[in-house]
Amino acid sequence: MEQAGCVNICNLTSTLPVIPYQKLTDLQFLSKGGFGTVFKAQHSDWRTTVAIKCLKLDSPVGERERNCLLKEAEVLHKARFNFIIQIFGVCNEPEFFCIITEYLSNGSLDQLLHEKDMYPLLAWPLRLRILYEIALGVNFLHNMTPPLLHHDLKTQNILLDAEFHVKIADFGLSKWRQLSISKSSGSKPPEMGGTVIYMPPEEYEPSKSKRADVKHDMYSYAIIMWEVLSRKIPFEEATNPMQIMFSVLKGNRPDINLETLPFDIPSRDILIDLMTSGWAKNPDDRPSFIKCVIELEPMIRRFDEIEVLEAVLQVK
Amino acid sequence: MEQAGCVNICNLTSTLPVIPYQKLTDLQFLSKGGFGTVFKAQHSDWRTTVAIKCLKLDSPVGERERNCLLKEAEVLHKARFNFIIQIFGVCNEPEFFCIITEYLSNGSLDQLLHEKDMYPLLAWPLRLRILYEIALGVNFLHNMTPPLLHHDLKTQNILLDAEFHVKIADFGLSKWRQLSISKSSGSKPPEMGGTVIYMPPEEYEPSKSKRADVKHDMYSYAIIMWEVLSRKIPFEEATNPMQIMFSVLKGNRPDINLETLPFDIPSRDILIDLMTSGWAKNPDDRPSFIKCVIELEPMIRRFDEIEVLEAVLQVK
Ligand SMILES: Nc1ncnc2c1ncn2[C@@H]1O[C@H](COP(=O)(O)OP(=O)(O)OP(=O)(O)O)[C@@H](O)[C@H]1O
Ligand SMILES: Nc1ncnc2c1ncn2[C@@H]1O[C@H](COP(=O)(O)OP(=O)(O)OP(=O)(O)O)[C@@H](O)[C@H]1O
Ligand SMILES: [Co+2]
Ligand SMILES: [Mg+2]
Ligand SMILES: [Mg+2]
Repeated sequence: MEQAGCVNICNLTSTLPVIPYQKLTDLQFLSKGGFGTVFKAQHSDWRTTVAIKCLKLDSPVGERERNCLLKEAEVLHKARFNFIIQIFGVCNEPEFFCIITEYLSNGSLDQLLHEKDMYPLLAWPLRLRILYEIALGVNFLHNMTPPLLHHDLKTQNILLDAEFHVKIADFGLSKWRQLSISKSSGSKPPEMGGTVIYMPPEEYEPSKSKRADVKHDMYSYAIIMWEVLSRKIPFEEATNPMQIMFSVLKGNRPDINLETLPFDIPSRDILIDLMTSGWAKNPDDRPSFIKCVIELEPMIRRFDEIEVLEAVLQVK
Repeated sequence: MEQAGCVNICNLTSTLPVIPYQKLTDLQFLSKGGFGTVFKAQHSDWRTTVAIKCLKLDSPVGERERNCLLKEAEVLHKARFNFIIQIFGVCNEPEFFCIITEYLSNGSLDQLLHEKDMYPLLAWPLRLRILYEIALGVNFLHNMTPPLLHHDLKTQNILLDAEFHVKIADFGLSKWRQLSISKSSGSKPPEMGGTVIYMPPEEYEPSKSKRADVKHDMYSYAIIMWEVLSRKIPFEEATNPMQIMFSVLKGNRPDINLETLPFDIPSRDILIDLMTSGWAKNPDDRPSFIKCVIELEPMIRRFDEIEVLEAVLQVK
């Protein structure tokens, strides 16, 4: 399988721009994540800000591994859509191997939701637009041939542009992820446990059938929905990831009472139905993303553009 | 040369998505332009609005012509950048040959500038951001390898997204343009004469040296600058394109007096210097786009984001 993913390397350079390292200046550290370090930088020819995500490696990667990674980057390059982060190219130099993407000035959705000092108010029209745009983006990825399953949806991977439109990041990078985990000398990254909240229970035992794969993202999306509607951290009371997993396996899910999800949420009942079917134990009971988009459409149409822009001004 | 542009067709399908015609529904006519008809449509899987630009053809194109056109579409596909329109794919069917791009809900810059009933106020921060983003976009195209020269910059080809950010359209489509003109049974499109205002004088005689090519876009940009700052139609008093051409050849340019370009334009003197050097008779005297971007940067930095968003709300 891995071999198959590595063919057609000769096509790569013709479609995925290679950006020379020396064009990237003013590097500023942004974050050290599960599979690499993210910097903000200036492109000296384009005169714009870009983000660069460098694989953290103890030892240099071999040529075959490098080609596999480039192949994945090429897949991202094909996924061009409104709510998907734009990839400008790769930097493929002996010492420096990274993906260059657009820079998103408003950070990630988890900051918007949980930094309440910075964003005391977050109006419903903007929250629902964010949920809608995530659903449109994932629906697009699932409609690609072959379908691109994200499998790492979480609020940290939902980035926000200057007007708080959604840009989904970190899709299709499974080989990058594997490689950086295996290379990181055995020690798991600190936030590793955090990702368990978005993981559907059937994934706890990785030996299960692949059938459920396509519904993995919907489970994560349902958790994100809850997070957006409540502005709380899912399973916050748990003291370790194992507790969360046991609780979820027993059928527990985040609270949907009126205290957590206030009654002034527009179309509250429909949203809760969508969310609870999204995190159903049985993957077949979860809706597809197209169904989810169709359910959200009439709610979104009810807001006018000015209402949403005013909500954006409020968080500026 | 044309042969050379048509090679490597086998690579195409792997990089430029082919969108089946039957996925496009609810077609709504938008405009009939110099080289084709533009429709708004829904994509039935993605559940979003797209724009489709169909080549108008009296007779079906041959396979070799089609491949050349696809090759050009592939170039557009490589030009992915913030201020460049996104191309989602092509529709390559016997009866239906078109490019599918993102749909931009706020139309084109010429509407924003000249429909004064609809947009009575147009604040300076937004106008300068538009000029800046056009310059960043063209600078990016000129920095591609090989450089992509637009050669049809005009306010109708500057489209505006939901928040009035710039998306440059119609670049790199020279073969599409040639073909649709040659196929349109000899009669030139009605607005054909309109494009002469953005054309640098050295292009009036097409036999001149190619040396000037790279400065063609800067001339057009200078005319756009004047149009944005004045909200007037360049050379409006002329009754036919020949009059404009004679006048420009004699060295005349649009008025820069205080009546046309009011003194409250921020950084008025610098902008006028940039504009007048941009439309210099001698192409070598015109600045490059990188120089232009560098000149605009400090002006743009002076506005804060909220000022610009308020200007956007004003035109909503
Ligand atoms: N293009 C970008 N523009 C602005 N900020 C970014 C960008 N990419 C990443 N960041 C910031 O860095 C954080 C971590 O980035 P990212 O999620 O891509 O890292 P990671 O290594 O993938 O971590 P993980 O594997 O846990 O997702 C994001 O939550 C965001 O705050
Ligand atoms: N993607 C789009 N989204 C929204 N409107 C569009 C889009 N593309 C084109 N239009 C509208 O249609 C008009 C004409 O489009 P366009 O310039 O692409 O046609 P054209 O055939 O290229 O004409 P010309 O050759 O004169 O430029 C634009 O000015 C704009 O108002
Ligand atoms: Co491509
Ligand atoms: Mg991430
Ligand atoms: Mg056009």
